[in-house]
Amino acid sequence: MKVYGDKLSGNCYKILLISSFLDKKIEWIDVDVLKGESRTSEFLKKNPNGKIPVLELDDGRTLSESNAIINYLSEDSDLMPTDKFEKYKTQQWQFFEQYSHEPFIAVARYINKYLGIPSDRKTEYESKQAGGHKALKVMEEQLARTPFLIGTSITVADISLYAYTHVAPEGGFDLESYPFVLRWIKLIEKTPGYIKMS
Amino acid sequence: MKVYGDKLSGNCYKILLISSFLDKKIEWIDVDVLKGESRTSEFLKKNPNGKIPVLELDDGRTLSESNAIINYLSEDSDLMPTDKFEKYKTQQWQFFEQYSHEPFIAVARYINKYLGIPSDRKTEYESKQAGGHKALKVMEEQLARTPFLIGTSITVADISLYAYTHVAPEGGFDLESYPFVLRWIKLIEKTPGYIKMS
Ligand SMILES: N[C@@H](CCC(=O)N[C@@H](CS)C(=O)NCC(=O)O)C(=O)O
Ligand SMILES: N[C@@H](CCC(=O)N[C@@H](CS)C(=O)NCC(=O)O)C(=O)O
Repeated sequence: MKVYGDKLSGNCYKILLISSFLDKKIEWIDVDVLKGESRTSEFLKKNPNGKIPVLELDDGRTLSESNAIINYLSEDSDLMPTDKFEKYKTQQWQFFEQYSHEPFIAVARYINKYLGIPSDRKTEYESKQAGGHKALKVMEEQLARTPFLIGTSITVADISLYAYTHVAPEGGFDLESYPFVLRWIKLIEKTPGYIKMS
Repeated sequence: MKVYGDKLSGNCYKILLISSFLDKKIEWIDVDVLKGESRTSEFLKKNPNGKIPVLELDDGRTLSESNAIINYLSEDSDLMPTDKFEKYKTQQWQFFEQYSHEPFIAVARYINKYLGIPSDRKTEYESKQAGGHKALKVMEEQLARTPFLIGTSITVADISLYAYTHVAPEGGFDLESYPFVLRWIKLIEKTPGYIKMS
């Protein structure tokens, strides 16, 4: 199995982290989005949407979308709940991540950390703050009740949300007012197999 | 089972459509977002993210996020592929829908159809066009190869994408240049159990 990605991207890091937790070997192929490597005709055959990460199976079939990839990799593992309702709760958190969390927190982080908040993106950066805090509040409310998003053990939902939450301060989101989110971050980082984002 | 939603919303319509295809009885409870009904403390207990649709089971547990809900409802049905790779391909299309399709097409439609493109949202409306067309091109490429997104039969992925694609012209997206998308729309509308968006 090959993964096309960039180790600095949170969406790609989800796959590195889950592979480490599951002790799965993957071959990593670096794709530099800023150099146009996700726009070549060869890459667009793997993902016509022109985004990393992409998983390529040994027979050449490809799967994109970070959360679909980690769910594929973790089927029948301890990271995927067996209870039916809990299984779809993990999906609820993952769709929440892509719709109500990542577009605010990851984008604010990108504008700050990689671009240094250029003046023509300052308004956009500021407009991301309220949505990011709203997402953090939704997480805090759940994590005050259960140590992980689904209950007492780590699941794919935690991996999807951890990717950009633990670096949220780089997008201007102070996590000090979210003590249960901070507790959860520590719990994930103490889980055997945990690896840092590079 | 109860569903809290608004029949005019594409995300809510996904659930009406799948319930009809699967012949599942659901009790529908109208929630008017514009009247603040998704911001009451009672509603926020069902979905702390304050969004419809929400599915409520008979025991009171709730599930939000339209795509998580339709996947829950269609487990073990003909709308969910049994082949492992195809199952995760449906998720790929659903995450694509939430990240690269809905935020452009549904939002442009909302600004046009419900707000009549007020002058303070004209720039935003225009900024949604390129992303929407990019998403339609990604769909067109797949639908030129297979009649449905995953192959020769309808799956949950088609329902997720159909919801806002078939009303894309209301967001300013002319579908005439996407003949395979148009063929797919007709195929879905001829599927037994199909019901219109109200
Ligand atoms: N919804 C996608 C988002 C992936 C994404 O946005 N990838 C970025 C890098 S983090 C990318 O490839 N951007 C290049 C582009 O969109 O042109 C996922 O979860 O995999
Ligand atoms: N990702 C969510 C999006 C749901 C959504 O945006 N719902 C809208 C109505 S279509 C809503 O409740 N808006 C009210 C709000 O966000 O305050 C899903 O797929 O269910």
